[in-house]
Amino acid sequence: MMTPEQRARQVGETMFAVDTASKDTMGMELLACEPGRALMRMAVTPLHLNGHQICHGGFIFTLADSTFAFACNSHNRNTVAAGCSIEFLRPAQAGDVLTCEGLEQTLSGRHGIYDMRVSNQRGEVVAMFRGKSATIQGNVFPEGA
Amino acid sequence: MMTPEQRARQVGETMFAVDTASKDTMGMELLACEPGRALMRMAVTPLHLNGHQICHGGFIFTLADSTFAFACNSHNRNTVAAGCSIEFLRPAQAGDVLTCEGLEQTLSGRHGIYDMRVSNQRGEVVAMFRGKSATIQGNVFPEGA
Amino acid sequence: MMTPEQRARQVGETMFAVDTASKDTMGMELLACEPGRALMRMAVTPLHLNGHQICHGGFIFTLADSTFAFACNSHNRNTVAAGCSIEFLRPAQAGDVLTCEGLEQTLSGRHGIYDMRVSNQRGEVVAMFRGKSATIQGNVFPEGA
Amino acid sequence: MMTPEQRARQVGETMFAVDTASKDTMGMELLACEPGRALMRMAVTPLHLNGHQICHGGFIFTLADSTFAFACNSHNRNTVAAGCSIEFLRPAQAGDVLTCEGLEQTLSGRHGIYDMRVSNQRGEVVAMFRGKSATIQGNVFPEGA
Repeated sequence: MMTPEQRARQVGETMFAVDTASKDTMGMELLACEPGRALMRMAVTPLHLNGHQICHGGFIFTLADSTFAFACNSHNRNTVAAGCSIEFLRPAQAGDVLTCEGLEQTLSGRHGIYDMRVSNQRGEVVAMFRGKSATIQGNVFPEGA
Repeated sequence: MMTPEQRARQVGETMFAVDTASKDTMGMELLACEPGRALMRMAVTPLHLNGHQICHGGFIFTLADSTFAFACNSHNRNTVAAGCSIEFLRPAQAGDVLTCEGLEQTLSGRHGIYDMRVSNQRGEVVAMFRGKSATIQGNVFPEGA
Repeated sequence: MMTPEQRARQVGETMFAVDTASKDTMGMELLACEPGRALMRMAVTPLHLNGHQICHGGFIFTLADSTFAFACNSHNRNTVAAGCSIEFLRPAQAGDVLTCEGLEQTLSGRHGIYDMRVSNQRGEVVAMFRGKSATIQGNVFPEGA
Repeated sequence: MMTPEQRARQVGETMFAVDTASKDTMGMELLACEPGRALMRMAVTPLHLNGHQICHGGFIFTLADSTFAFACNSHNRNTVAAGCSIEFLRPAQAGDVLTCEGLEQTLSGRHGIYDMRVSNQRGEVVAMFRGKSATIQGNVFPEGA
């Protein structure tokens, strides 16, 4: 019998292993996957810069969206995004290291709300993302009865 | 004296030339930049896939966000995003070719609303993104009086 | 056999007749309920004013949300809101007459996107609301096979 | 010299006294206005019901939007909403008593993020609202140097 903590960790490892977009294309690291919580990190490189020479907002969104996926799947029930919104508060520059913490705010039946906060290495908030989740059939990894 | 169409085209060329994130990292093409309108295209490759083997929602957001930037800067007044929301309607697979059209809905003083619609090669709507813009000081490219 | 137009009209009459909040408390009128479209009107009275002596944003939201409900139920399949966002563009004053038009943007399977535009009597856009709908079981009014 | 707590309380009294929409039309009470926090309450009456005989979502939005206004003005600097989003989690019935707590999440320069949580008398979350604020010129009440 797994503990909720072990289950969440295995969800994280299982999902991250095949997440080319987050891992390889964006260069994210998964620092923690716990029950109702995930923590990811991404360094801003020249490849992330848009025409204003700041990190493309889409990649900040992508970091938060990935963190959301780990947090809302952490109970090993397949869960998808049903909607989201983001507020950008501060630009990110090349060389910045962005950390995103995702936290479950409420989970009732099939629907949950998760808040992701993206901060830079000085602890300043770069963006806040809110996701609404919907649980569907199946598990992230097979779990014995 | 430039026409609005010439001005928008030059905005597009100026911005896209230095937009590493959109052009190089994501592989987008800018098909049109017109007054209050932009059209971009992105083929979904294996590099865009997440752990579910579908295109990461963050990259669909990124395509729409880039299209928003071209559409709202098309009048050659520097304009930034003041907020946005996205609804995902259908997944995108490797091999799909996504097109995003962005259209100005309203522009009054400094604030505008732009709607971006991401479709696949079958014309099915993949996502709808709404952006609110705020005009700031300066121009995308210098323009004689 | 009803036409889509007759069906939508009857949906509007059925729903509006028992909608105390919209009709009595807020003083809205339902001007049209057509397939995938609704049109409502609300005059701003002193009862709608907040501490800044402008119409409370919540009541502008309420007008748009009601219009959304009529538009997305107009096919006589019970439909609920699955998410929404609003952008406020201009304040509304006592004496203003607000009109809200709601239009179906896409409808595929159970999910649709509807855009509501609130304008004042001068045709200026006051707010734009986007709603995502989900169709559930049942009909607004019973319809013979 | 006022303390931040005294200042927030006076902001609350000043604004609520003239907020016809919240106080009279909707029947809200302002339970607390503290630095970066506000608490409001509203009982759901038959006047709030829509055609489904549940509380109109627009009025739940209105409760959250009012709470947002008190929380973001609590430092006695005039502050307006620059954007917001809401997620509805559970319907509210006639007889329910809704409480909304609003909390400042981040405030940096002119821009802040506030989260409002609407709960019923059983402590169940009914809706979550996120507001982005922008500080403008002036004060809610005149304050000596």
